Amino acid sequence: MKRKGILVVVSGFSGAGKGTLMKRLLRTYDNYSLSISMTTRAPRPKEQDGREYFFVTKEIFEKEIKQDGLIEYATYCENYYGTPRKYVEEQLDMGKDVILEIEIQGALKIKEKFPTALLLFVMPPTAEELRKRLTGRGTETPEVIRKRLSRAIEEAEGIEKYDFVVINDDLDTCTRELHNLIMSAHNAPFRNEAFIENMRQELRSLVKGEK
Amino acid sequence: MKRKGILVVVSGFSGAGKGTLMKRLLRTYDNYSLSISMTTRAPRPKEQDGREYFFVTKEIFEKEIKQDGLIEYATYCENYYGTPRKYVEEQLDMGKDVILEIEIQGALKIKEKFPTALLLFVMPPTAEELRKRLTGRGTETPEVIRKRLSRAIEEAEGIEKYDFVVINDDLDTCTRELHNLIMSAHNAPFRNEAFIENMRQELRSLVKGEK
Repeated sequence: MKRKGILVVVSGFSGAGKGTLMKRLLRTYDNYSLSISMTTRAPRPKEQDGREYFFVTKEIFEKEIKQDGLIEYATYCENYYGTPRKYVEEQLDMGKDVILEIEIQGALKIKEKFPTALLLFVMPPTAEELRKRLTGRGTETPEVIRKRLSRAIEEAEGIEKYDFVVINDDLDTCTRELHNLIMSAHNAPFRNEAFIENMRQELRSLVKGEK
Repeated sequence: MKRKGILVVVSGFSGAGKGTLMKRLLRTYDNYSLSISMTTRAPRPKEQDGREYFFVTKEIFEKEIKQDGLIEYATYCENYYGTPRKYVEEQLDMGKDVILEIEIQGALKIKEKFPTALLLFVMPPTAEELRKRLTGRGTETPEVIRKRLSRAIEEAEGIEKYDFVVINDDLDTCTRELHNLIMSAHNAPFRNEAFIENMRQELRSLVKGEK
């Protein structure tokens, strides 16, 4: 049977290591596509259009909204951020599991629109480890670190709405675990309706044949 | 964190290969315990008390029912079959994932009493393959095979109530897949409440400390 891809939403605290984890996941397994967001914010140095984001003007973004070209979008610090629909749907139809790295509000919007989306939450092994990672970057002021930790507290309130939590202690272990979680989701009965229905029909014909 | 075991219910058509699969699972991984049912039916040749079943009298079985010593029981062909509670609870507390091989009615009763139980349904790759396996045993009359296939049609009606389906085509692959499905279930947020709550508290203390 040809199986359809799963829309996989990955969230997690800033500093939990989502970015590295996603890169590793895509490099290790060939069943994934990473969705790239569209934004109206200006590219930062070293950011490349079509790699980190699709950088567009406000006018283009609002045209996309009107044409229902985004499966979700939000504003953050006066900029738009959204997920282009076309790429996601094409990849899912091709059987790819499409990864969206997205924060909790966006994740819950996706779940509303796509109830079969799989929601994963990446956690650090301990809060102290999270603080260390945020500090270790060396680029953030104490005030920024405190803000990120406060934001983590808010995000932590929604963890129960996710399908799975995964602890990012060791990168290799966590990548494998993440992959196994997504593979397991393919075994839910509602993702195998055609196979199950076909089995039922075959069984009925067999019993008739044995009469 | 010490993790609690999961109550895993495995169902599937007669001939889907559940028995062999369970044996392989228990031999390959050390996190499982197999629950042994209690029955009032007479042991068949080569069956051993405490291995295939605990063979007991009707009186003893009914005493167990009265004392709430069974987590589920049913009658089938005028005999009782049930799952002793004590062993299951002890093993779960020890962190073992306890496997119950049980048909669909029993499985749904378990799910009602233990909403966190994980329900897995083993399927053959095709209905024709199922018929072959049933015929291949060489011990069954056509009438029995037809009955088993009819029973499979009935059981197939309930597949959507299971958490996962797994296709038993190759024994090794299926064993590994079954194991991965059970492992993935450990990552559900409701099975990690203590860890999540602890993370929340740690984050709150850290933010206070940074002020």
